[in-house]
Amino acid sequence: MLQFDLLQTDPSSHARRGRLTLNHGVVQTPIFMPVGTYGTVKGVTPRSLEDMDAQIILGNTFHLWMRPGLDVMAQFGGLHQFEKWNKPILTDSGGFQVWSLGAMRKITEDGVHFSSPVNGDKLFMSPEVSIQIQTTLNSDIAMQLDECTPYLSVEPKTKGQITTEDEARASMEMSLRWAQRSRAEFARLENPNALFGIVQGGMFEGLRQESLEQLVAMDFPGYAVGGVSVGEPKDEMLRIMAHTPHRLPAHKPRYLMGVGTPEDLIEGVAQGVDMFDCVMPTRNARNGTFFTRYGDLKIRNARHKMDQRPLDETCTCYACAGSATHANTPDTGAGRSWAQGGRGGFSRAYLHHLDRCGEMLGPMLSSIHNLHYYLNLMTEVRAALDAGTFGAFRQQFKANRARGV
Amino acid sequence: MLQFDLLQTDPSSHARRGRLTLNHGVVQTPIFMPVGTYGTVKGVTPRSLEDMDAQIILGNTFHLWMRPGLDVMAQFGGLHQFEKWNKPILTDSGGFQVWSLGAMRKITEDGVHFSSPVNGDKLFMSPEVSIQIQTTLNSDIAMQLDECTPYLSVEPKTKGQITTEDEARASMEMSLRWAQRSRAEFARLENPNALFGIVQGGMFEGLRQESLEQLVAMDFPGYAVGGVSVGEPKDEMLRIMAHTPHRLPAHKPRYLMGVGTPEDLIEGVAQGVDMFDCVMPTRNARNGTFFTRYGDLKIRNARHKMDQRPLDETCTCYACAGSATHANTPDTGAGRSWAQGGRGGFSRAYLHHLDRCGEMLGPMLSSIHNLHYYLNLMTEVRAALDAGTFGAFRQQFKANRARGV
Repeated sequence: MLQFDLLQTDPSSHARRGRLTLNHGVVQTPIFMPVGTYGTVKGVTPRSLEDMDAQIILGNTFHLWMRPGLDVMAQFGGLHQFEKWNKPILTDSGGFQVWSLGAMRKITEDGVHFSSPVNGDKLFMSPEVSIQIQTTLNSDIAMQLDECTPYLSVEPKTKGQITTEDEARASMEMSLRWAQRSRAEFARLENPNALFGIVQGGMFEGLRQESLEQLVAMDFPGYAVGGVSVGEPKDEMLRIMAHTPHRLPAHKPRYLMGVGTPEDLIEGVAQGVDMFDCVMPTRNARNGTFFTRYGDLKIRNARHKMDQRPLDETCTCYACAGSATHANTPDTGAGRSWAQGGRGGFSRAYLHHLDRCGEMLGPMLSSIHNLHYYLNLMTEVRAALDAGTFGAFRQQFKANRARGV
Repeated sequence: MLQFDLLQTDPSSHARRGRLTLNHGVVQTPIFMPVGTYGTVKGVTPRSLEDMDAQIILGNTFHLWMRPGLDVMAQFGGLHQFEKWNKPILTDSGGFQVWSLGAMRKITEDGVHFSSPVNGDKLFMSPEVSIQIQTTLNSDIAMQLDECTPYLSVEPKTKGQITTEDEARASMEMSLRWAQRSRAEFARLENPNALFGIVQGGMFEGLRQESLEQLVAMDFPGYAVGGVSVGEPKDEMLRIMAHTPHRLPAHKPRYLMGVGTPEDLIEGVAQGVDMFDCVMPTRNARNGTFFTRYGDLKIRNARHKMDQRPLDETCTCYACAGSATHANTPDTGAGRSWAQGGRGGFSRAYLHHLDRCGEMLGPMLSSIHNLHYYLNLMTEVRAALDAGTFGAFRQQFKANRARGV
């Protein structure tokens, strides 16, 4: 089940405001989806995710197939109950992870033969297998198996060379055949959720156009743009982002896979993208880099040692504002003594100290903050689209981010 | 400021129920105090600590002196504001950590000369320095500097030999002189909090008796029993626990330092101890060992792979029961979707999976659970003392723990 309602369009760009209804609930778009590779968004509890108003999260099919394995997933009736997340989940196809195994895998028309990185077992991934796994996971949105067309070749014979148009075409055409097979298997299994097709075609607009037209002819309930953020220069990425999303059907959701920085998200929204995912907020958090309204901040820097200010005074996350994260909670209860003391959140000095001492609370707080930043950025985008002020919002966003923190 | 009210005594043992009023609030005793070495109880947020009803936490003077340093502590007006914990804090003297430096330190009557393990600086710790640091930290309870009398010698000449009575006497007598100096410095600085004396004397009841009598003559507002849980066999520790605590003044709080397992705590309560601290709940959590009502559980064990049960069905922590941790929160708000779904906490299978994948959420949930277990055990002890049923509680506790989980 998938229903997409287009609520608003921006006159100054391709940006749109929508509402996506899935088997486990409603998602307001544009949306950022935190990545929960192994059935956990790294460093945060499901409760924290709900506190920061996450509406849909990702799981990685390949990782979950390896660990804990399908026997466990089947016993729990899918990923939701296993990881205690009762809102929508999107899973990728596992294609990118299998492809990334390099020398440990062999790609054929039929599918991909590879050795398990966990125990060395000989395994096989095909469009049918990917859909079978995602059906077991019971994700609200499943993705077709595709072949990732890299910017630079990773094959032994051509390693490091820019992918040619012929190579990109062959890859894109196989992904189209895999789209058909994914779709057929999804139907055969009577999967009650939704399956997205993935536009490929490398850095070639003509191939992208062909790919999207053929996918549209297959009538998927939603479409993704794949093969971006795969090592290409930023201007190449922006060129494809400017080409593909807004050419997809207006009445269906559009998902830009694996992108990106806050600036990339705002650009993506302006190009007509509805859904984003990226590991940056959590990965950068663990490396001590915080995203803020006024630019990025490296907490390891010695200048923070004595700084009593919170990371971002405009932020309402638990790290910056204490109990204010419980946006939907009456101010009695869990955070009550924070509110009473009026003490606000943690200081930069404290976060610097946690980082220096390698204390777990450091990445816990930074993961909360960065995810909250990304989710809140999309909340602000939606509010601007609702109010018809997205153009002005975009200007202010750029000015703020350039100000410095 | 310290006021101790003795509320109830147990007819079948030395156990007592009390109330300790400090500058940052009231502590119900017997109490377990989570250890926050570097200004953070490892793996949990201050909000989680409040959710699980922690009433007082520890900080380590030596660690906080090294990092972030006294300049930072002074700027924040103490540890409470720095770590965002507005309830009582107890700090140790730093003596144990300095002593543990081994070859890097030299102990004299005046104090301890040592090299900083962080940057190699030559530093000096004395009773006066320790009290000065603890005054800067503004801890509600400060501890006198003492010399830890080890069970086995760590000195080059006598390494590995059991400490003799003469050695234990010399050490205990120096600790008494340091108690006087600590007390004088505490008064000179007009520290508004409370200072505890520490009973030493190794494994010799006669020395313990002398130490406690002389400390009682100095009239401290509270007393600790030190030099246990320092490598001695369990029966030696139990012998000292049976000797010392109940001989301390009845109208003052008694703190058994660095102890111990759940069984040790119950034994300590029966011997008249009011306050405990130990790193076991958090350290064992990070090693995948969970404390439960029915015994300890190693989550790494393969038998948990498919187990859909929570760790402990009688436990109300976030890991075991989901939103039920918000004991004081109306069931709308943060945990609402948990409550609505009636789904309870995380399964053993999921916790096993997190451990196997090295996911941060594993130690986060196990730290919450283990701390909640220790704190809740003391809540149950207090309820039993209030009800006059501590003897029966103690029997049931042993039977439950022996049952197996």
